Amino acid sequence: MKPSIPKGTRDFLPAQVYKRNFIFDTIRSVFKKYGYQPIETPTMELLETLTGKYGEEGDKLLFKVLNNGDFLKKADQNALSEKNSGAVLTQISKRGLRYDLTVPFARYVVMHQNDIQFPFKRYHIQPVWRADRPQKGRYQEFYQCDVDVVGSDSLMYEAELVNIFDEVFHKLNLKSIIKVNNRKILFGLAEANGIQDQFMAMTMAIDKLDKIGEEKVIIEMTNRGISEDAAKKVLSLLAIDRLDDLEKEFENAPTGQKGIEELREFHNYLDLTSVHNKVKFDISLARGLSYYTGCIFEVEADTNMYPNLKMGSIGGGGRYDDLTGNFGLKGVSGVGVSFGAERIYDVMEEEDLFPQGVEKDLDVLLIAFDDVTHKFAFKKLQLLRSMNVVADLYPDPAKMQKQMKYANARNVPYVLLIGSKEMETEEFTLKNMTTGEQSLLTFDEVVEKIATA
Amino acid sequence: MKPSIPKGTRDFLPAQVYKRNFIFDTIRSVFKKYGYQPIETPTMELLETLTGKYGEEGDKLLFKVLNNGDFLKKADQNALSEKNSGAVLTQISKRGLRYDLTVPFARYVVMHQNDIQFPFKRYHIQPVWRADRPQKGRYQEFYQCDVDVVGSDSLMYEAELVNIFDEVFHKLNLKSIIKVNNRKILFGLAEANGIQDQFMAMTMAIDKLDKIGEEKVIIEMTNRGISEDAAKKVLSLLAIDRLDDLEKEFENAPTGQKGIEELREFHNYLDLTSVHNKVKFDISLARGLSYYTGCIFEVEADTNMYPNLKMGSIGGGGRYDDLTGNFGLKGVSGVGVSFGAERIYDVMEEEDLFPQGVEKDLDVLLIAFDDVTHKFAFKKLQLLRSMNVVADLYPDPAKMQKQMKYANARNVPYVLLIGSKEMETEEFTLKNMTTGEQSLLTFDEVVEKIATA
Repeated sequence: MKPSIPKGTRDFLPAQVYKRNFIFDTIRSVFKKYGYQPIETPTMELLETLTGKYGEEGDKLLFKVLNNGDFLKKADQNALSEKNSGAVLTQISKRGLRYDLTVPFARYVVMHQNDIQFPFKRYHIQPVWRADRPQKGRYQEFYQCDVDVVGSDSLMYEAELVNIFDEVFHKLNLKSIIKVNNRKILFGLAEANGIQDQFMAMTMAIDKLDKIGEEKVIIEMTNRGISEDAAKKVLSLLAIDRLDDLEKEFENAPTGQKGIEELREFHNYLDLTSVHNKVKFDISLARGLSYYTGCIFEVEADTNMYPNLKMGSIGGGGRYDDLTGNFGLKGVSGVGVSFGAERIYDVMEEEDLFPQGVEKDLDVLLIAFDDVTHKFAFKKLQLLRSMNVVADLYPDPAKMQKQMKYANARNVPYVLLIGSKEMETEEFTLKNMTTGEQSLLTFDEVVEKIATA
Repeated sequence: MKPSIPKGTRDFLPAQVYKRNFIFDTIRSVFKKYGYQPIETPTMELLETLTGKYGEEGDKLLFKVLNNGDFLKKADQNALSEKNSGAVLTQISKRGLRYDLTVPFARYVVMHQNDIQFPFKRYHIQPVWRADRPQKGRYQEFYQCDVDVVGSDSLMYEAELVNIFDEVFHKLNLKSIIKVNNRKILFGLAEANGIQDQFMAMTMAIDKLDKIGEEKVIIEMTNRGISEDAAKKVLSLLAIDRLDDLEKEFENAPTGQKGIEELREFHNYLDLTSVHNKVKFDISLARGLSYYTGCIFEVEADTNMYPNLKMGSIGGGGRYDDLTGNFGLKGVSGVGVSFGAERIYDVMEEEDLFPQGVEKDLDVLLIAFDDVTHKFAFKKLQLLRSMNVVADLYPDPAKMQKQMKYANARNVPYVLLIGSKEMETEEFTLKNMTTGEQSLLTFDEVVEKIATA
């Protein structure tokens, strides 16, 4: 039997884990620095919590867990005979795997509303599962990194979250563009053209602008019942890139005006901070999810810096007015963003952005040549470890060649050779594995050399 | 609808995550220091990988994931009509949730044998799932922390793993006893009494000694077909606590002699290291799992230090000669240990061993009193954050009382008050939330005070 793993899932080798952790650790450290607190939720949620929250397509992509024991016992005989999977499902499965972090967070806030203090600033880094058809760059198990604050409508947090985006990508050395818009401004586009009733249709068409171009967006709008005149007018407004110019168009669009006001207050805060990446108002930014109600954000790698890169958004988020209403707690406003860690990994890999040494684990490997020197080397090993040098010893006095092969495979910068002469004189041969250079050093000199490497 | 989560699963509040991470970070840091490399495996494994590896009981406790789509389509009509859950299972489910880290690791070593270098030193910290009946201290989702080296039979690693146990518990400030035995010595007990054929029966009875006492162990052995004489002789040998004394009894027990030899070589290495906790030879230590073949280990909290504690083992492991044979790779010897992180958490909670400040996240909270001072405070906030102070600002100039209530709930050591006078004079009131003391300070003095807190 040749072992394998389910399609769409992955094993990670150490080098991959180091790189992935470099990203997660960077994100986590910034979340912490800005005063966000970690939470964790169970892998399995009740299906009644998950179902109906992600649309019909989402329900299909949920992984469902079979009830344990004699799961068919209580199943309906007719439904079984008819092979009616839909009807049988609820009788044999009560649990599903977490599909995103937003719904579990909403459930969490409602369940623990008496244990948490509002505004509740939390971050949440855990894997999610979706039964998507496996394809390049898309996996059935992947991490999400969410940071949200709920229970306040202060626009200070919008600025703070843009700072978090900026600081993470700056620390990752990944040049990016943070696009900003406001759902109320999008609604203003509808208001200004008297098509408020077709707001969602308009938004969904605009959302495709980057992909399908202006002409097809107009066709998509008219197909959805928007007049060609209105559609063209909307498109012309999308060319505006300054709030002042937009304001003139929004004389009869009170919600749109409110959106401008919110973006200005957001900028009042943001201007008090220093930002490394580009922050750009993009009136055509729509974000698919319908629950956003205020500012929205999307981050892309800066293609001016990476001309060969083909990659969608690597982060996004926004303000929502009713996260927890589904679970019976009304009126809790929140704002949050999410990092696309898997895509960030792909960008950094393609563009060679991981810092040198990110995969290095071992500082030095000791090798010995017989039983006596092996024990002696083991003692020196303890000394090195007590000084927090990440040191290791080949497990037995094997042939030099075999031990050096292992040293190379472990990618270790130094090898320390310990033979009977070294044991006697307490002077050791330290080999620099990059340059091949060898030096005869006292133990203290060895430690110094390794520590300053 | 009142939301809830599946029985046996848990949400974690920030304070719990901090404490859990204190344990995981400590364990991980020691694994790294000793040169072990991280791997990760998918949550879902193929059922063919998992089934049959954990015994009949284990198979029942596996969580199985339903195939996606119209899962009943290919199910056998007869099996459905008969409600034969067992027969239907394999037709509607291909995947299960990871039950432990050992089987996935074996699968991983075989699949990636050409990508890894032997001896392969790896650690693996991920959750596992078991459909156990939920009860106090037992959960359906919990973390395992495994560290193993495969591809070498050097007893240096046995000593190293005991050092890892010792260092982790030392860093956690959890006084513990590390019990050591060798499966070959247990086999020697059988050899010395001519009951080699009943070795497993004998071992399983001995494994219960702590729980049921000598008399019942003898009864259990005789019930399993061991003569009363042999059973009593075995029990008398269990009183021996020195290898030299045991050696005399093992004249006709060659495997037993080999076990003594291995323990002595293990001690040759261990004696070259410094150990903080008690390491104790315990001839009655058996460890349930049958795949161990050499040294075995088990760690308990030292009940001399914690007289009120009722808790089983908080760590364990041993040497196995054939981890990967099930997956077609023979002759790979390995040794590994595992930390019972959930129980360690419970011990540390019960005995109040978590260090002070483990839950602290925020260094200082800024509070302002109107829109102008709020923007000013926001600017100071950036300055503090740029100095890596974990600072936060209440999101709006709310009533003092409300803001102080939030500060208390966030458990913040300092509050910095920023009103219009402070803004003018650039002198700020810093309130120590523990003592209640207030001081008027320049911004630099504020930073210094917080940094040295």
